[in-house]
Amino acid sequence: MSLSDKEIIKRLEALAAKVAAQVMRGRPPYIEIPVRSFSNTIWDEKRKILRLGPAKARREFLDSKEVKKFMQTLLMLSLIVTARREGDYPTIRDLYYMGKHTITYRDINGRPRKEETWNEQRESNSIIEDIEVAVGILREDMGIMHDAKGKMVGNVIIRSKGHIIDCSKMGIGAYAIPPNPDRLEIIKVEADYVLVIEKDAIFERLNQEEFWKRENCVLITGKGQPDRATRRMVRRLWEEFGLPIYVLTDADPYGWYIYSVYRSGSISLSYESEKLACPEVRFIGVAASDIEAYKIPKNYVIIATDRDLKRANEMMKYPWFQSEAWQHELKLFLKRKEKVEIEALSGHGFKFLSNVYIPEKIEKRLWII
Amino acid sequence: MSLSDKEIIKRLEALAAKVAAQVMRGRPPYIEIPVRSFSNTIWDEKRKILRLGPAKARREFLDSKEVKKFMQTLLMLSLIVTARREGDYPTIRDLYYMGKHTITYRDINGRPRKEETWNEQRESNSIIEDIEVAVGILREDMGIMHDAKGKMVGNVIIRSKGHIIDCSKMGIGAYAIPPNPDRLEIIKVEADYVLVIEKDAIFERLNQEEFWKRENCVLITGKGQPDRATRRMVRRLWEEFGLPIYVLTDADPYGWYIYSVYRSGSISLSYESEKLACPEVRFIGVAASDIEAYKIPKNYVIIATDRDLKRANEMMKYPWFQSEAWQHELKLFLKRKEKVEIEALSGHGFKFLSNVYIPEKIEKRLWII
Repeated sequence: MSLSDKEIIKRLEALAAKVAAQVMRGRPPYIEIPVRSFSNTIWDEKRKILRLGPAKARREFLDSKEVKKFMQTLLMLSLIVTARREGDYPTIRDLYYMGKHTITYRDINGRPRKEETWNEQRESNSIIEDIEVAVGILREDMGIMHDAKGKMVGNVIIRSKGHIIDCSKMGIGAYAIPPNPDRLEIIKVEADYVLVIEKDAIFERLNQEEFWKRENCVLITGKGQPDRATRRMVRRLWEEFGLPIYVLTDADPYGWYIYSVYRSGSISLSYESEKLACPEVRFIGVAASDIEAYKIPKNYVIIATDRDLKRANEMMKYPWFQSEAWQHELKLFLKRKEKVEIEALSGHGFKFLSNVYIPEKIEKRLWII
Repeated sequence: MSLSDKEIIKRLEALAAKVAAQVMRGRPPYIEIPVRSFSNTIWDEKRKILRLGPAKARREFLDSKEVKKFMQTLLMLSLIVTARREGDYPTIRDLYYMGKHTITYRDINGRPRKEETWNEQRESNSIIEDIEVAVGILREDMGIMHDAKGKMVGNVIIRSKGHIIDCSKMGIGAYAIPPNPDRLEIIKVEADYVLVIEKDAIFERLNQEEFWKRENCVLITGKGQPDRATRRMVRRLWEEFGLPIYVLTDADPYGWYIYSVYRSGSISLSYESEKLACPEVRFIGVAASDIEAYKIPKNYVIIATDRDLKRANEMMKYPWFQSEAWQHELKLFLKRKEKVEIEALSGHGFKFLSNVYIPEKIEKRLWII
């Protein structure tokens, strides 16, 4: 799956080489970067993912408004190329510090001036994302590290650094998904489906009772809003092994949005959807309509906050929530103003979730898309 | 290490049996629970841990101020015993929902009244902690699940559910520490020390470059303020295998407090220190004095906030920060009002942390306790 370090260095160098060529020809140099703003985010109806539009922006060296970003882009590019050449794995924060220094210069009136290459990590992170889009390589594949939240367990066999890792032999623990899952070789998967669980504690509980063994599935959690690595792993299991993917979250707009991030991508990372989104993901609950369908006791129900209602109203308008089923769910939520957590199902007994709710939703095809 | 389910059930039943015996003898029943408040938290100078004092409180059935907690304690006890008898692994939130119901009764004037068994998870969590203290068993060992943040990698071999798990063969991933690490059998450890890293991204970076292999150590991260499972795993590696434990955090009061939680325990969980604290933990940085010692460039330094300064002032007074070295560090911090992140060391090159800083601190015994 993943590109070799050699190929990655080649692509990064190619971007820099364009600038060098401009300089050599005596032309004012610029770098062309696809625009990552909301205005250039497109809902691809056919492929059911959010993706980046065609707009590109030029960063001109000779434009006083652009020159700082031009400098930042080349600075970051050189840091990333150096790290790859030397086999280093900096974090995004390392790159911020590595590149941070004070530039001293004289302004047009000859006065000495000082300026930082960047002042906040937000700036350097944004440049890393620009480079990802410009060269079409995930930062993870460029060897850039960050936090990794995901865990996995089930009949998945992986090869990495010469070792064979059997995710069905983790005992009561689990396999912690690395930040760069494309560098894992998934050599064998024997499972009927993947169950993605919003909440880590529920993941742990289902792992303790070996739900994945009984149901022949793979369990994954991204601990709330998933990170890129967890999304990439889910995507690979779908894309390379054709597994159906089911998502289980709390019954609230926050949980439902998590489902949509796995499925369609997120607005802020739309340029990565083609690698991270998984447009056949199915939502198995907990849905707003489950509160009645599964007779969840009144005293387990939580009153929705104004923020929940605002969020649901926004989601009603998103192109990827336009299905009849989702519109029905969101309207029901806005009408009832009630939410519940996955754990509310425990009112029917500890094993209700694993013995009844999940198997029933899957067997009877009660999912929502 | 861990108690069998049978033994756990026996201990829980013994607590309930005392109450039953009181009733059978026609006495007003009560439950005796050690007091978990700050006033009953003792700094054990000799053992260098925070621990619970001798105070106990009685929850009397016939005391109108106590009866609700009496009821909650027996309710929770029955939920936990039932789960253990049936081999269930509820989360703390499951237990909240399982136990939540409305009690209807008539008050002394004959008026019908309603009251919830509990209204917030805070209440049911607190009762779980009471039961832990009363029976002297960690909730993890009672099969109660919760989030687990920790990851581990290195020459550690574990047996769990009949599988042999070799934490040196996780490839670019890691072993996700389960919520109940006492149920892991650690069968072999071949390492010179344990390095506990505050930040997950740094853990990932050191894992990518196989720092643990080169240095023959075990890497663990608890992702910021550690959870109980990570602390328990660290403690077991120290207690059962005699490994020195080094902690690496950012140079700020938040990071230094994390070190002290691994070492001495936390005020809110002082009753667990005897199982979770690890009084020989050594702090290898980043220290306030490192800012000068390692010539960290001025523009990497962050100005301390008022909150940082307030925190440092509080920490100056904690008995477990009274060593000359720590008093010096805290005073220096309060004087300079400067903090830095671990990643600021990258200013000396990506590999400075792993090739120079950590090995030097350990070899030259530059740690602080």
